[in-house]
Amino acid sequence: MCGVFGIYGHDEAANITYLGLHALQHRGQESVGIVSRTGADFHRHAAMGHVAESFSQRTLEKLPGRAAIGHVRYSTAGSSDIRNAQPFFFEYAHGGIALAHNGNLVDAGEQRSRLERGGSIFQTSSDTEVIVHLLAQATEPDTISRLLAVLKQLTGAYSLLLLTETKLIAARDPRGFRPLVMGRLKDAFVVSSETCPFDLIEAEFIREIEPGEVVVIDGDGMRSLSTSESRPPPAPCVFEHVYFARPDSLLNGRSVYRVREQLGRELAREHPVPADVVIPVPDSGVPAAIGYAREAGLDYEMGLIRSHYVGRTFIEPQDSIRHFGVRLKLSPVRAAVVDRRVVVVDDSLVRGTTSRKIVHMLRNAGAREIHLRISAPPTTNPCYYGIDTPSRSELIASSHDVSEIERFVTCDSLRYLSHGGLMSAVGGSESRADFCSACFTGDYPLRPDASQGGADLVRLRTTPSRAESEISHG
Amino acid sequence: MCGVFGIYGHDEAANITYLGLHALQHRGQESVGIVSRTGADFHRHAAMGHVAESFSQRTLEKLPGRAAIGHVRYSTAGSSDIRNAQPFFFEYAHGGIALAHNGNLVDAGEQRSRLERGGSIFQTSSDTEVIVHLLAQATEPDTISRLLAVLKQLTGAYSLLLLTETKLIAARDPRGFRPLVMGRLKDAFVVSSETCPFDLIEAEFIREIEPGEVVVIDGDGMRSLSTSESRPPPAPCVFEHVYFARPDSLLNGRSVYRVREQLGRELAREHPVPADVVIPVPDSGVPAAIGYAREAGLDYEMGLIRSHYVGRTFIEPQDSIRHFGVRLKLSPVRAAVVDRRVVVVDDSLVRGTTSRKIVHMLRNAGAREIHLRISAPPTTNPCYYGIDTPSRSELIASSHDVSEIERFVTCDSLRYLSHGGLMSAVGGSESRADFCSACFTGDYPLRPDASQGGADLVRLRTTPSRAESEISHG
Amino acid sequence: MCGVFGIYGHDEAANITYLGLHALQHRGQESVGIVSRTGADFHRHAAMGHVAESFSQRTLEKLPGRAAIGHVRYSTAGSSDIRNAQPFFFEYAHGGIALAHNGNLVDAGEQRSRLERGGSIFQTSSDTEVIVHLLAQATEPDTISRLLAVLKQLTGAYSLLLLTETKLIAARDPRGFRPLVMGRLKDAFVVSSETCPFDLIEAEFIREIEPGEVVVIDGDGMRSLSTSESRPPPAPCVFEHVYFARPDSLLNGRSVYRVREQLGRELAREHPVPADVVIPVPDSGVPAAIGYAREAGLDYEMGLIRSHYVGRTFIEPQDSIRHFGVRLKLSPVRAAVVDRRVVVVDDSLVRGTTSRKIVHMLRNAGAREIHLRISAPPTTNPCYYGIDTPSRSELIASSHDVSEIERFVTCDSLRYLSHGGLMSAVGGSESRADFCSACFTGDYPLRPDASQGGADLVRLRTTPSRAESEISHG
Amino acid sequence: MCGVFGIYGHDEAANITYLGLHALQHRGQESVGIVSRTGADFHRHAAMGHVAESFSQRTLEKLPGRAAIGHVRYSTAGSSDIRNAQPFFFEYAHGGIALAHNGNLVDAGEQRSRLERGGSIFQTSSDTEVIVHLLAQATEPDTISRLLAVLKQLTGAYSLLLLTETKLIAARDPRGFRPLVMGRLKDAFVVSSETCPFDLIEAEFIREIEPGEVVVIDGDGMRSLSTSESRPPPAPCVFEHVYFARPDSLLNGRSVYRVREQLGRELAREHPVPADVVIPVPDSGVPAAIGYAREAGLDYEMGLIRSHYVGRTFIEPQDSIRHFGVRLKLSPVRAAVVDRRVVVVDDSLVRGTTSRKIVHMLRNAGAREIHLRISAPPTTNPCYYGIDTPSRSELIASSHDVSEIERFVTCDSLRYLSHGGLMSAVGGSESRADFCSACFTGDYPLRPDASQGGADLVRLRTTPSRAESEISHG
Repeated sequence: MCGVFGIYGHDEAANITYLGLHALQHRGQESVGIVSRTGADFHRHAAMGHVAESFSQRTLEKLPGRAAIGHVRYSTAGSSDIRNAQPFFFEYAHGGIALAHNGNLVDAGEQRSRLERGGSIFQTSSDTEVIVHLLAQATEPDTISRLLAVLKQLTGAYSLLLLTETKLIAARDPRGFRPLVMGRLKDAFVVSSETCPFDLIEAEFIREIEPGEVVVIDGDGMRSLSTSESRPPPAPCVFEHVYFARPDSLLNGRSVYRVREQLGRELAREHPVPADVVIPVPDSGVPAAIGYAREAGLDYEMGLIRSHYVGRTFIEPQDSIRHFGVRLKLSPVRAAVVDRRVVVVDDSLVRGTTSRKIVHMLRNAGAREIHLRISAPPTTNPCYYGIDTPSRSELIASSHDVSEIERFVTCDSLRYLSHGGLMSAVGGSESRADFCSACFTGDYPLRPDASQGGADLVRLRTTPSRAESEISHG
Repeated sequence: MCGVFGIYGHDEAANITYLGLHALQHRGQESVGIVSRTGADFHRHAAMGHVAESFSQRTLEKLPGRAAIGHVRYSTAGSSDIRNAQPFFFEYAHGGIALAHNGNLVDAGEQRSRLERGGSIFQTSSDTEVIVHLLAQATEPDTISRLLAVLKQLTGAYSLLLLTETKLIAARDPRGFRPLVMGRLKDAFVVSSETCPFDLIEAEFIREIEPGEVVVIDGDGMRSLSTSESRPPPAPCVFEHVYFARPDSLLNGRSVYRVREQLGRELAREHPVPADVVIPVPDSGVPAAIGYAREAGLDYEMGLIRSHYVGRTFIEPQDSIRHFGVRLKLSPVRAAVVDRRVVVVDDSLVRGTTSRKIVHMLRNAGAREIHLRISAPPTTNPCYYGIDTPSRSELIASSHDVSEIERFVTCDSLRYLSHGGLMSAVGGSESRADFCSACFTGDYPLRPDASQGGADLVRLRTTPSRAESEISHG
Repeated sequence: MCGVFGIYGHDEAANITYLGLHALQHRGQESVGIVSRTGADFHRHAAMGHVAESFSQRTLEKLPGRAAIGHVRYSTAGSSDIRNAQPFFFEYAHGGIALAHNGNLVDAGEQRSRLERGGSIFQTSSDTEVIVHLLAQATEPDTISRLLAVLKQLTGAYSLLLLTETKLIAARDPRGFRPLVMGRLKDAFVVSSETCPFDLIEAEFIREIEPGEVVVIDGDGMRSLSTSESRPPPAPCVFEHVYFARPDSLLNGRSVYRVREQLGRELAREHPVPADVVIPVPDSGVPAAIGYAREAGLDYEMGLIRSHYVGRTFIEPQDSIRHFGVRLKLSPVRAAVVDRRVVVVDDSLVRGTTSRKIVHMLRNAGAREIHLRISAPPTTNPCYYGIDTPSRSELIASSHDVSEIERFVTCDSLRYLSHGGLMSAVGGSESRADFCSACFTGDYPLRPDASQGGADLVRLRTTPSRAESEISHG
Repeated sequence: MCGVFGIYGHDEAANITYLGLHALQHRGQESVGIVSRTGADFHRHAAMGHVAESFSQRTLEKLPGRAAIGHVRYSTAGSSDIRNAQPFFFEYAHGGIALAHNGNLVDAGEQRSRLERGGSIFQTSSDTEVIVHLLAQATEPDTISRLLAVLKQLTGAYSLLLLTETKLIAARDPRGFRPLVMGRLKDAFVVSSETCPFDLIEAEFIREIEPGEVVVIDGDGMRSLSTSESRPPPAPCVFEHVYFARPDSLLNGRSVYRVREQLGRELAREHPVPADVVIPVPDSGVPAAIGYAREAGLDYEMGLIRSHYVGRTFIEPQDSIRHFGVRLKLSPVRAAVVDRRVVVVDDSLVRGTTSRKIVHMLRNAGAREIHLRISAPPTTNPCYYGIDTPSRSELIASSHDVSEIERFVTCDSLRYLSHGGLMSAVGGSESRADFCSACFTGDYPLRPDASQGGADLVRLRTTPSRAESEISHG
């Protein structure tokens, strides 16, 4: 997953973008980058790592200008490489252009092969670079025409920001898989993957950018174009609501926090159980647990504490005491669970190993019964539109039924929210037409790249053994 | 503040100590160190920074042996120096000895002057080094006798671990200001500032080490000695319960989580208010907010979200948008507070600036009324026993009454828990004899160093301009 | 300037390349890189900095395979960027290919503009990338045909190594501006900018690669092709003999050391002076000073000592004592020069500032007279074939005559070797047909890019303000 | 070995000290430190590594004041520890004091044991710390009296600088083992191990500090005291002349360069051989080779080139090609030695392994005969006065006669300068009374610590396994 942020018309464009990316950090922790612009000169800083550790006062000062775009990128095994850090910047016959992309093109593999056969040289293993080459080869007379021509050639999910020598352009694919919103900060326009940065920078939320819409911002203000004449039904990602977006964001006109509380209420109605206390898996399960407890009339307790000190650098000792994993991150509060029947609420169960450790931990802390409740349906299918779900074979629900998973996790009962309950909470219809919920249903709005088998294969084209390492001494 | 951890009789003594310190990380983030021992050889690694970033597999491998002690130290302005990182290790006429100290000696200034006049050379600005010099000059024939003689000369707060060539020794001052507990991990003994590491390493809690007790652990097992014949009344720190200890720890026989929930209930009884929702300041206010909501019969909501990505390296942009401070760390959830009368529960209000920002933030998110409730009495006096409270002039409650603070914070109402309510929740008596609550009352069990004015002056002896910087190139 | 090294058919190809680059370090200190190959997989490590500090045992282990090429690059102000570090590696329709280039294409600016207009995207500010794009667009059926077609389109200086999935290819431009030699190490073939690495790795020198020759090495052995049918006269760079090459290398069939000693002898014959002692500017002036002293019958002394400890990181204090420059690097030996008439021999005088400081230093050490002798003609013209000479305005000899420079340097006399003397020492004819000596004569064998003004403008296309900075956190 | 430098009365005391240490870098590359002083405040920066890489503009700015002392320390295996980096700084009853020491106390082991029995705690494994403790325990009323009393208790070699709150003090032991000189820079006094920094900073050499002299510099100027009434015969180290000092220094009133040239002349007279050319082992053998060639009437050539790029970080590849060692550092110039009878001059032959590799290298380059000439007698005994000679068992000359070494080195002949020749060149008498030449003769002016066996055992007290590692994060 990724997050994008852009601003046009502010004296501190890079500073605001930096803060915006900080608020979008949950959407990607692998790499971060900002490109700003002064006149026809572009300035770029990109790094592996978190926003906070990748920018200093000095690097921000080297990003002057009144327009900027930024990007945070999620960590996925094997393709971690500074060359894939966005925004991409390139110079072509028409000057400089920078580009930040959230989403995934389903036919990137085919497009890349075709372009390479025509003499194009790819520098990254990212599907996004296909857009770069298509833009460089487009022959239309102006940037907007070239962009619209390129977008017509793309199939897949994209929420896209482009920074040219005069414009900030935001584009969202016709199905609207990934979110993209617009706001105002004094005289400046801002665009962002979610609304949560707007609270931080004190910007005003204007509206979502529509599926299939292209918004062009320049010295003449803002205008709206459309990528295509035919309008396929929108299919925004329901997983953003369940799991990915920050609870203080608005998504599809709804509060993510309130949707999650509602998921907990639906879950309590679908799967009640005699119990003494409801506890969340922090922090992801908190709103749903509050909803569950309220609907069920049970006490809510903070029965698991999350450590603030587990960073990426923690080393697990290698010998007899191993596999601390979740125990380093979560600790049980004995007083909250001892001798009680406990309902544990979480928003997902992917491989089952974390849930198993939590159950073990609570059992050791004295819980009498442990009932696991998941505020979403079982995740059974991979995402081809930009979320790095594990492969099918790692998704326990794609090969095991609920009672098998229950036994693996060793809880007293395990229940998932139904697809109907999910749709009810997010305001969709049971017919599944309003959202993409392919990860729960296998019903894909767009077919992935047939010849290549989808996003993963694009990544494999540049094998890890060809990965380049570059270290700067100085 | 600091935390100590030690283990005797385990093949992976340093690994376990590393995990123990990780669980005690909340007690100190400035520096961390471990000393282990093989026979008469001691091995030490100390560093500025967090546990996770200060140890690698390689450094842990360089700490062999079946006994180890460790220390985490709190960050205080000005005296941040690797030389102050504990455990201290020194060699003297009787071999090597390592030492880790939580607490503060109230007469360290006087003792240091006296020792320097006698030819002693101090290497650190820490009060703990006084203990080192007294031990080196003690003339008793064996380690235990020397230690007991030295402890008789100390005045103040200490929970102390020593590692000698044959023993692990744990000592707690006669008033028992700072906690110290003991447990078993298979055949090994463990000692720790709090019980929370025991869950992580799967050790069994045995009991607290008593005020005035010295516990000696060696090849012959464990035995208990006493530091003094006269037994002054114990005075364990009540602030550990309110604020400092981890909620999953047991302290003075009580669950810290349950005590905090009880503080919230007392607070609701003392200071009710017509409202729609109770929200905590996360994570510190969560248990008390749950207690308040339950007692008041109000809805509990997660109205503020804590970011996981605000580390020590975050740079605030310098120009027009400033003073983000708490806004980078906390975000309001509009859906939870909009158009509602909100009770905000926190465990302390020190300078008032953070609370003021939170009130502003919630007001912007649409809260109709904001009632601030603090689950402890006003903090009016500095601590001389090891907690780095701000100086009196920075404690807003030492110079302003509640209505003045209310105006400063701009909330609709502000109320503190009474001292009686506090004592009721922690199980103490109103007579104040059972706990040290000097930070709330000014009633100090032990007078600070008269000639010097207390702990701060010890720190000032080595001025920052004399601070040494040492960087290792390799 | 740059250096290239390659090997085919050795189990430790990357290790040998690393040693080879170490011996070529004098040809470039800005960046270094190695690409190795196992089957169709390429492995690359490139870094800013010296060979020794840029490779560790671990990075070398990540470069497996029996074939490798490497590159060292010279530091030039403004274009210092890891993206310019070679060897370049790219994937195109025909698989992977790596490329290392010493030299400079004189029409790179024009070629780049033409390619960008056709949709190509450039990633670096290096002229070498033009070759990459031409190769990607070539339509010939096999690699060798494509390469020969591309070489025909190039104008300028190149000693080029390419590593493909099956071959190591070495190519030298028709004029042979930059050197390129070939050797054997057991069963393996090695190619290198100079012969000096062969002594280190104990390889056997075979022969120079001829101007206009393409050597292809693969599993079938070695074969030689020609880039062009018309054969222009060769024009190897005479500055390599005077200044750039290492004295223990063979160049154009001659010992560089012996040529330099001969330059000193010619200099003594052309410009004798009554004196007591001859001293070199170490280490560059040593062989010529030995030749001068021997021809003149004067004592040779080490009157200036070179410090081994002046690295790139040395900070000059900023205040009253400044401009240490050459004094930190060179120290006078009073006993060798006091009260004596001293002849100082160096191989070049570019801006005059260093010579001026040396004269001042020797004067302070007590020298009675100081006669400066330069073992080459005045440098008056920039190089367009790969040597980073200062611009014309910085070359003192392009705007001042010898007596003016003499006064600036404050020596008692200054004399340069004549062009005839230079040609006599290197074995060329006075007609200038055998070498490129354009930097001394302005007589360029190939015209630089007319529309662009030469190499510098290629660099300026990506302005420093667009330079990208990338920092990897881990 | 170590170097010391100090200055009193200059606005840029730390900057000058930094430059002074840079010029003394050959005396120690393990660690470096500077202490400066403003009023009663001392400022210290110490680091492992070279001067150039250990100080930045920022660290120099943190060392204000008009007085400073500095120290460079030699790298010795096993005791490499930032805690041993000098100058030491300590605070005692009389305020702050800093101390830098070149030399070695022969009874440090005994003194340390005695002090530890009295309650002293040692922080380092350095003999120098004994002086610190003696100073802290001295009861005389003023600093000078205390220092004189302490110096009377010391046995061994010391050239010592002390910086107190008002004074800079320089002291040299009664035998004057290690050098110490004094100069002026405008109104400031400077003291230094050698004269070579004076040329760099443009200071004027005044005179040597005499054996047994204590020089006190403060606001009242400079005055000279004596450490002892009895005056033993001076015994300055002859190895400084032969090997250690920089050739541009003056030592005992003589030019080191000229002495070394004279050593070469003596060597030619004692050990002539029919040959074609004389070459030095650079850079150490250059002056003696020039002297040899001149005396013998033979050609001098630069037959071996020294690489400027072999730093401490160079990694030797691990597999089939190993033991590059000297080949990475030195390269033969074939043209200078091929088919010739070569005399190779060096200043020492310690283990014989380097010489053996040089002979092999020259043989491969085509030399017909190789005659090795050493400009000093065989090194047969360890130094107890501050030079880190290898142990006796590693000194090849302590167990093998010349013909055996000749065979090991595989040269055609090997000859050493006689002790008489050495004394003649340095201006000493054959009776050996004027210099310490114990490393050549075993005739020690002072007996080493009998109970401990000398300097090495002091180091071993803190075993490597007890070594402390401290890394600062931030």
